[in-house]
Amino acid sequence: MTTLLTTSDVANIVALQGPRKVFTDLLDYVLADFLRWQEFDKCARVASHSATGVIELMPTADNELYSFKFVNGHPDNPQAGLSTVMAFGALAQVSTGEPLLISELTLTTALRTAVTSALAARALARPDSRTMALIGNGAQAEFQALAFHYILGIDTLHVYDVDADATRKLESNLASVAPSLRIVRFDGTAQAVKGVDIVTTVTADKAYATILTADMVEAGMHINALGGDCPGKTELHGDVLRMGPVFVEYEPQTRIEGDLQQMPADFPVTELWRVLTGQSGGRQSARDVTIFDSVGFALEDFSALRWLRDSAALHGIGTRIEVAPQLQDPKNLFNVVRTARIGQSALVQG
Amino acid sequence: MTTLLTTSDVANIVALQGPRKVFTDLLDYVLADFLRWQEFDKCARVASHSATGVIELMPTADNELYSFKFVNGHPDNPQAGLSTVMAFGALAQVSTGEPLLISELTLTTALRTAVTSALAARALARPDSRTMALIGNGAQAEFQALAFHYILGIDTLHVYDVDADATRKLESNLASVAPSLRIVRFDGTAQAVKGVDIVTTVTADKAYATILTADMVEAGMHINALGGDCPGKTELHGDVLRMGPVFVEYEPQTRIEGDLQQMPADFPVTELWRVLTGQSGGRQSARDVTIFDSVGFALEDFSALRWLRDSAALHGIGTRIEVAPQLQDPKNLFNVVRTARIGQSALVQG
Repeated sequence: MTTLLTTSDVANIVALQGPRKVFTDLLDYVLADFLRWQEFDKCARVASHSATGVIELMPTADNELYSFKFVNGHPDNPQAGLSTVMAFGALAQVSTGEPLLISELTLTTALRTAVTSALAARALARPDSRTMALIGNGAQAEFQALAFHYILGIDTLHVYDVDADATRKLESNLASVAPSLRIVRFDGTAQAVKGVDIVTTVTADKAYATILTADMVEAGMHINALGGDCPGKTELHGDVLRMGPVFVEYEPQTRIEGDLQQMPADFPVTELWRVLTGQSGGRQSARDVTIFDSVGFALEDFSALRWLRDSAALHGIGTRIEVAPQLQDPKNLFNVVRTARIGQSALVQG
Repeated sequence: MTTLLTTSDVANIVALQGPRKVFTDLLDYVLADFLRWQEFDKCARVASHSATGVIELMPTADNELYSFKFVNGHPDNPQAGLSTVMAFGALAQVSTGEPLLISELTLTTALRTAVTSALAARALARPDSRTMALIGNGAQAEFQALAFHYILGIDTLHVYDVDADATRKLESNLASVAPSLRIVRFDGTAQAVKGVDIVTTVTADKAYATILTADMVEAGMHINALGGDCPGKTELHGDVLRMGPVFVEYEPQTRIEGDLQQMPADFPVTELWRVLTGQSGGRQSARDVTIFDSVGFALEDFSALRWLRDSAALHGIGTRIEVAPQLQDPKNLFNVVRTARIGQSALVQG
């Protein structure tokens, strides 16, 4: 039997554990997997593009577990009352192929993206970083804010979004969850980033946008660029990428999808796992500009699915479902049809 | 909200409609999609191989719908009480990325594979075919037998499997569902295929096997070869492929996975859709040997998921689940966490 987790189930896990524990625990899962990077089968995600967005599959595996995520990106969805990003995925046993867990990954993607950003920033930003600009105050903004608050000790947030309602929503949510986090609203990106230690860009527009230009970048800044994550979708002016060392998750994928898509094929980058394992240096001085060109990688979902599996088991959350029949004789698949009792409950509550 | 179908749900659909209607209806869905082959985004499946088996993702899309299947193939699974093949997948809206249906595809894969075999045989076998040899009497055997019985009018089945229990199971299941189908048991492949019109090979061993050799093949036969479907897993001796025209689903995938993997890269094959649309001929004479080297293609799962969606709606079967939250403000994903009520039922029964 396979465990199913819905968005409410994952929200219940977060509510039970509290966001601070969720972010710090999930960071341990993601870090543990980045540290054994070479044990994973890796490939760039398989994308299906349309006029309005993209649908992607993101598989990866080690010797024990296989995972994949289905995820879309449709920037105009909010106008139709739908989320820009919706996702679900599964964790399966490599030795048998059995699906162990099928879970929503919509909420979980926001959690693991924020944790990966914080993991990179902990390795790359100045250790005394306390202020962050958050450009783009949409669905992922609270998660970024809290991950940086809990993991890096960010205490002041400069916020800006072209949609003022999004900023108001962010302020209201954060006030209720992290009242000690100081929030300052700005009227533009240039004003918001002035003097901060870390700049996080997480905007949704599927376009060659230049949210951040070189004149806005100050010595010592760490730039956490999330929204350039798809061919034709960028946030940083090319000159920003030339201001300091650029770090990526999985180079072959980021060359296609990241802000890096603007640069020549031999533009130098360093994979984050190398910094985390100590094989490459990160920041050399307090005046360096460091850039994390993040697009989201399958390994992070693998880690998140492991965390979900363990958390669901711990709290007894989830529903057991049949995606393969429980057969006395595995060769007798037809018996499922022969003995089907119409109206039988399809779900066994777990 | 997304509809979830478990294996019991799909078995209930089959029980409600009866297998004859299921096979003939599903054939219409698969045929309709093969006839508009060029409207689909196609790629070879994304495989992750291990020592014991393979896990694959099979995506495809037209302008309206996107589908994918997760499926494994682990030949030793029955020894551990598990099915060789387990699968599930989803259908999503291309315009928004919203997942409409998540369904088991274990039982469904057996249904759509059998229907595709029958569709190819209807186009390629001699119209007066009445006898079929079924080599390999495992999990898929009943489905193949019934599809050929209902769709081609096969009335006599020659059966053989190295595992005599599998053959007994097949006989017992078919006797209860299709008593008019005559079944004759044989002690070897050579004996079973002698004099038949159609030979179906559906064996599970992950090896370069030669279930069928050229000396067993007679003029006029149609060969429906299913078990050579993975690198390193074949059923036909290379000489068999040289005995007549070879037909495939999607050439780039079959060159890697099919019995075709044994042949040079320029060995000529014809894609089935060309025959179905009349762009290519099939059989030229009653003495031709025709070979369908089937590996299973994403398009067939797309068709099956469409059929499941329509059947589930028709019968009111399935459970509505949340893989993305229903948000009043789609930018306020965090509200799901803020308002999570622990213990709230995660599933809304549909």
